[in-house]
Amino acid sequence: MNLNLVDKHQSTIDTAVRALHERTFFAHYPENPSPDVYGEHADKEGREKYKAHLNQKFEELLQQDPEAWVGQEESPYEQQPLGVKYPFFSPETLVSRAEEAYHQWRKVKPADRAAILVESLERLRTRFFEIAYATMHTTGQAYMMSFQASGPHAADRALEAVAAGFEEQTRFPEAAAWEKPMGKYNLKLNKTWRAVPKGVSLVIGCATFPTWNTVPGMYASLVTGNPVIIKPHPKAVLPIAIVVAAVQKVLQENGLNPDICQLGVDADDHLITKDLAEHPKVKLIDYTGGTEFGNYIESLPGKTTFTEKTGVNSIILDSVDDIDKVAQNLAFSVTLYSGQMCTAPQNFFVPAGGVKAGGETVPYAQVVQKIADAVTALVNNPKAGPHILGAIQNPATAARVKDAASLKGKEVLSTCEFQHPMFANARTCTPVIYEVDATEKESYSRELFGPIVLVIKTRDTAQSIQIAKEMAQNYGAISCGAYTTDPDVKEQIMDEMGLAGTPVSFNLTGGIYVNQNASFSDFHVTGGNPAGNASFTNPEFVIKRFTWVGFREPAAG
Amino acid sequence: MNLNLVDKHQSTIDTAVRALHERTFFAHYPENPSPDVYGEHADKEGREKYKAHLNQKFEELLQQDPEAWVGQEESPYEQQPLGVKYPFFSPETLVSRAEEAYHQWRKVKPADRAAILVESLERLRTRFFEIAYATMHTTGQAYMMSFQASGPHAADRALEAVAAGFEEQTRFPEAAAWEKPMGKYNLKLNKTWRAVPKGVSLVIGCATFPTWNTVPGMYASLVTGNPVIIKPHPKAVLPIAIVVAAVQKVLQENGLNPDICQLGVDADDHLITKDLAEHPKVKLIDYTGGTEFGNYIESLPGKTTFTEKTGVNSIILDSVDDIDKVAQNLAFSVTLYSGQMCTAPQNFFVPAGGVKAGGETVPYAQVVQKIADAVTALVNNPKAGPHILGAIQNPATAARVKDAASLKGKEVLSTCEFQHPMFANARTCTPVIYEVDATEKESYSRELFGPIVLVIKTRDTAQSIQIAKEMAQNYGAISCGAYTTDPDVKEQIMDEMGLAGTPVSFNLTGGIYVNQNASFSDFHVTGGNPAGNASFTNPEFVIKRFTWVGFREPAAG
Repeated sequence: MNLNLVDKHQSTIDTAVRALHERTFFAHYPENPSPDVYGEHADKEGREKYKAHLNQKFEELLQQDPEAWVGQEESPYEQQPLGVKYPFFSPETLVSRAEEAYHQWRKVKPADRAAILVESLERLRTRFFEIAYATMHTTGQAYMMSFQASGPHAADRALEAVAAGFEEQTRFPEAAAWEKPMGKYNLKLNKTWRAVPKGVSLVIGCATFPTWNTVPGMYASLVTGNPVIIKPHPKAVLPIAIVVAAVQKVLQENGLNPDICQLGVDADDHLITKDLAEHPKVKLIDYTGGTEFGNYIESLPGKTTFTEKTGVNSIILDSVDDIDKVAQNLAFSVTLYSGQMCTAPQNFFVPAGGVKAGGETVPYAQVVQKIADAVTALVNNPKAGPHILGAIQNPATAARVKDAASLKGKEVLSTCEFQHPMFANARTCTPVIYEVDATEKESYSRELFGPIVLVIKTRDTAQSIQIAKEMAQNYGAISCGAYTTDPDVKEQIMDEMGLAGTPVSFNLTGGIYVNQNASFSDFHVTGGNPAGNASFTNPEFVIKRFTWVGFREPAAG
Repeated sequence: MNLNLVDKHQSTIDTAVRALHERTFFAHYPENPSPDVYGEHADKEGREKYKAHLNQKFEELLQQDPEAWVGQEESPYEQQPLGVKYPFFSPETLVSRAEEAYHQWRKVKPADRAAILVESLERLRTRFFEIAYATMHTTGQAYMMSFQASGPHAADRALEAVAAGFEEQTRFPEAAAWEKPMGKYNLKLNKTWRAVPKGVSLVIGCATFPTWNTVPGMYASLVTGNPVIIKPHPKAVLPIAIVVAAVQKVLQENGLNPDICQLGVDADDHLITKDLAEHPKVKLIDYTGGTEFGNYIESLPGKTTFTEKTGVNSIILDSVDDIDKVAQNLAFSVTLYSGQMCTAPQNFFVPAGGVKAGGETVPYAQVVQKIADAVTALVNNPKAGPHILGAIQNPATAARVKDAASLKGKEVLSTCEFQHPMFANARTCTPVIYEVDATEKESYSRELFGPIVLVIKTRDTAQSIQIAKEMAQNYGAISCGAYTTDPDVKEQIMDEMGLAGTPVSFNLTGGIYVNQNASFSDFHVTGGNPAGNASFTNPEFVIKRFTWVGFREPAAG
């Protein structure tokens, strides 16, 4: 083992642990893709490296003897296959190799594991642009989001998990001398404790955020001594394949088995997720994706699971300083990546009596119209629209937007064909807005993934809060945006949405959006409602991956 | 609220938090029941207070309008009903009162909650002897164990849970100023976080350790802001009823609703546990008891559960310094409270080739005989036997000891009628020892609750370890005792039993036993095998009782 890695990275880890507890702004990886930060040719080289993968075998992985070469990715921008082929291994092979690697990795000290993992992130830093292009052409994210979410933001979330895992494993002493006064003598025991990793870990990725949603569970399992099998979504493999390859390389350089971290892709003709998840040797499962499959994962006996499923996110409009700024902010939130973020707002609760703005009241209909107009203006702004909307990852999402007309609601804003200026074949659609009556719970009590906004007219803000809370408690929520200038209403929203395990962003305008979550400060998903049982990165996210076991023996003499 | 309680108790809480992390010896409540510590008349007064409860209504609780008065306890020493009657409330009443109390209690700050709870423990300190007699005459524990386990040791486990809960709720800031450099300007958000308690908590007690096994979950739920319903075993109510009454009194004195902590006893003609456990408002469940019911509890959807079920605890004999001292130590462990401890050893693995002792080898048969002889000597020692054995809590346990003859094994030591010197009608039985072949897994792969020892002859220590690990992984284990003078064998046992989530005590002789677990040092149950999913008191035991929820808003200016 190259022990210099601890010297090299321990201060980064210690800084990250402090950041977790201060929760002020902290980022280890700069989010600005400028040449000043990443080098003059970084973008161009990244794009070339991405292109060099196309129609080739991805041969960087150190996993031996593939059973086949498979791949079914296609670019939402070009609607053409990427043609990248990945090595396929049967679930049994993946699990037995992971189990073997487990007995090596679990004996590496937490500090060494953490340093090895940070080294892998430092290597990835030089590949952020390559990962960005791979992310664009699998997820449909726009360039800036692809760079930030899959590169520096993902790396910071991974570092966060490493820091939390390192901290929790070193929170109790490795050894203690226990001496109990018994009156005539002292009873002396030497005690030691070990954080024993639980075993093979499976991380199931999603198609929209292939690295950002995968690396927290991946690095949390690794830092706590568990071997991982990364099962990416079959449509979004390349970005995380690059990450896995980087980890394998650092493992090998340090004399460790690269199978500690394996990529396990689906076959072209069948999915392997259930076979992996149900394998008795698989003890930990991280999952991002739809609710139905997530509920299945949570129900598997004998597994410790970490899920992020879906939710219905609310906007509560009560009172504002400037309704136009609010409308612009919300328009951005629903347009960003065409509503394909788990944090995108869906249900907008607007009181029938309108929204107080300064000394006046903006009537309900005018509030709705201002939001619709702001969306239209944003989408039609050629300098902004394409760079915010991106493309639609999955044809089903585009279909869902069209089907929104079947909701029991009134159309406020229809979707339009959107011609992407750079990609003539891009799969796109623009946000739709429907008005739905508060009594039509069927319509708004499920996630309509994609750029679909439902405006729900309520009696008053009290009803808005009550329904938003009920939705979050019963169907899950990952974010909530609220606008109020009344401190009592604010406290009421905090209290009620807090009970529903839902974080709330108040009065956002300008360059900060309800969709955004900052590493080292914002817990992503709370684990406290049906949107998911885990949180990036609270202590629970790491401590459930190992067991504290104590040993004791009488002290000599 | 009497805010002086924080001044009064915060240093105790801080000391306890430190002790949790140092894991050296720490006890806040003295375990010695001597007059020097607890006062000249403490024992006599405690006995009188206990007697005053008999055949009376227990009217100390502050819960209003009971629907009936019920009670079915009987003394294992006297085999007569205690005649104490407790107020009965329907599950619906208990849960709706808890839900109402929740919205008061959750708004009390963690530091205030912790101080109120420590105050309740300080009040109980004056009632340890009363609780001790109540414990004796419900559980059958001998006097010393009744005092220590139900009094100071339980209070220390409760303090441990309070300390851990306080620490976890204060590990992240209540507020932070987040300021992100954006190049031309800084983005400023004010952020706050709340630890939101999950809701109504149910704590299901057992008949053998009515306070020790109940107070950790009870105090852990309370300190994290959840109202609790204590559902004791119908045969062991009085000890925990006294604890609940003390908490209620402190709550009321501080202007709080006593229903924050309710006693919910079974009706005389039906049990209410399932109705409570399945109630949708019940979010947290702590359970101590048999595996079958524990598995049902763990399987309930939408609940966070903390279980201690049963396990098969092993002794691995490899090599020793002094076989006689080892035999005496083990004899004590199996005799203590007639094997009715969850930590009592059951399966003794002895190599066919015997046990190395100093330069010699003690043959297998002689090892077995020495253990049997040591049990016989201990039981027949009139100064020790009755004070170690106690009485048998449940007639089913006595029947199980008699039925052990039906195991496919050879009787080494038979049970005998044991006449208790102080209680002529005491239900007693002495340990039995059977030899079972290693191939007869059916016989030894389940917990035989009570004083039943199975000696399993193995090929060698490697096989002993392999079977002990397999038993722990498949059927659970709470303790393991191992005897070896070989460092390599020791490491092998730590490694293998660690993988089975089982703590190991090595080479215990003299006045320390595998059954014993020290608060603030030994994690009790690891949560890492089927013996239970929770541990007294690791961070997981408290953090799963609340949700971190964040709130944010742009900073002015």
